[in-house]
Amino acid sequence: MNTPSYRLYHYWRSSASWRVRIALAWKKIEFESIPVNLLDGESESPAHLKRNPAGFVPVLELNRGPHAGEKLTESLAIIRYLEETHPEAPTLFPGTAFDRAKIWALAEVVNSGTQPFQNISVMEKHSVDGEEQKRWSIHWITHGLEVFETLIQSGKGQFSHGDHFSLADTCLIPQVYSAKRYDIDLSAFPKLKHIYETSLNLPAIVQSHPDRYKP
Amino acid sequence: MNTPSYRLYHYWRSSASWRVRIALAWKKIEFESIPVNLLDGESESPAHLKRNPAGFVPVLELNRGPHAGEKLTESLAIIRYLEETHPEAPTLFPGTAFDRAKIWALAEVVNSGTQPFQNISVMEKHSVDGEEQKRWSIHWITHGLEVFETLIQSGKGQFSHGDHFSLADTCLIPQVYSAKRYDIDLSAFPKLKHIYETSLNLPAIVQSHPDRYKP
Repeated sequence: MNTPSYRLYHYWRSSASWRVRIALAWKKIEFESIPVNLLDGESESPAHLKRNPAGFVPVLELNRGPHAGEKLTESLAIIRYLEETHPEAPTLFPGTAFDRAKIWALAEVVNSGTQPFQNISVMEKHSVDGEEQKRWSIHWITHGLEVFETLIQSGKGQFSHGDHFSLADTCLIPQVYSAKRYDIDLSAFPKLKHIYETSLNLPAIVQSHPDRYKP
Repeated sequence: MNTPSYRLYHYWRSSASWRVRIALAWKKIEFESIPVNLLDGESESPAHLKRNPAGFVPVLELNRGPHAGEKLTESLAIIRYLEETHPEAPTLFPGTAFDRAKIWALAEVVNSGTQPFQNISVMEKHSVDGEEQKRWSIHWITHGLEVFETLIQSGKGQFSHGDHFSLADTCLIPQVYSAKRYDIDLSAFPKLKHIYETSLNLPAIVQSHPDRYKP
């Protein structure tokens, strides 16, 4: 009777998963949480590959409507879908078309320019040496944060683009969390560090935080 | 007097550049073409890093309106902007919110799941050996096309999602072109191979094709 409209397949520490959890929390949309373990091979299991042939989380399954049972993949595509189908909910795409172009570009600096290189399968393909895998990830995360910091430098707002929390911040927060796991020094990125630290107190970030989903 | 509204900084063989050229051609939007050479270091020059601190092409500069002189980065963000600001032009996001979620996910399979690994800087960071760089690229392109082919398998339309050319095809065509440069056998991907081959005859593909911009 009270089944939420969505079922989210995700992993607590996956940054793409956290992005979608942030969007759901921001828009106050309830969901059923289904953990998929990235470390024990569950994400490469036949059951999960049927949900997403890329073997990635998150996957958002629709529970209602004409597409009930269908599964959506790719975090930005999912967030874009939630934006379009819940126009009454708080937006992650504030401002004008120009603002949205800047916001989306920042999101892609993380989504396509940073995060892919820290995927386990990519690290393992790059090297069998754990230390080299770590150096590789640190290199790409640092580079991505440098680009992000440069792009937001001239901005005067309190978030990545202006004074409204947006898709750019939705991608930034989990990426900085991941940088901290690698002990990357954030002092070279004062602006994004500040955004990260102040955002941690936002209800949508508290509610969606990896710690809340830790097994 | 007759200056186009946009100036596109791009490289003839860059797949992300071609995506934006496809979108501009699809929407019949004129632009001034400014080549940026990816092979001789021009994309890492101070002049280009000022346009895009990531050192990537394409960059779309706005020539008119309140944001004249501003530069937009990230191919999908640019295409999304063109869609929003030219609603009268033919769309690359046909259908419903659900269709757009599927289209955007396919675009990201290429944009964040495939193309980043074939960037020159990434190949060079992975290995100094040219043959290993090639193996690395072939591995990721093949994997990306496998995921794409699986996702479109159940579709009945003539394009990646349904019977309308979309953002998914806009990302697919340049990626397949790149796969062919690496001599990747496409026979394992009959559906996307067919889409690629038939799309080559579309006016927007002919007009935006790398051959047209070869120095």
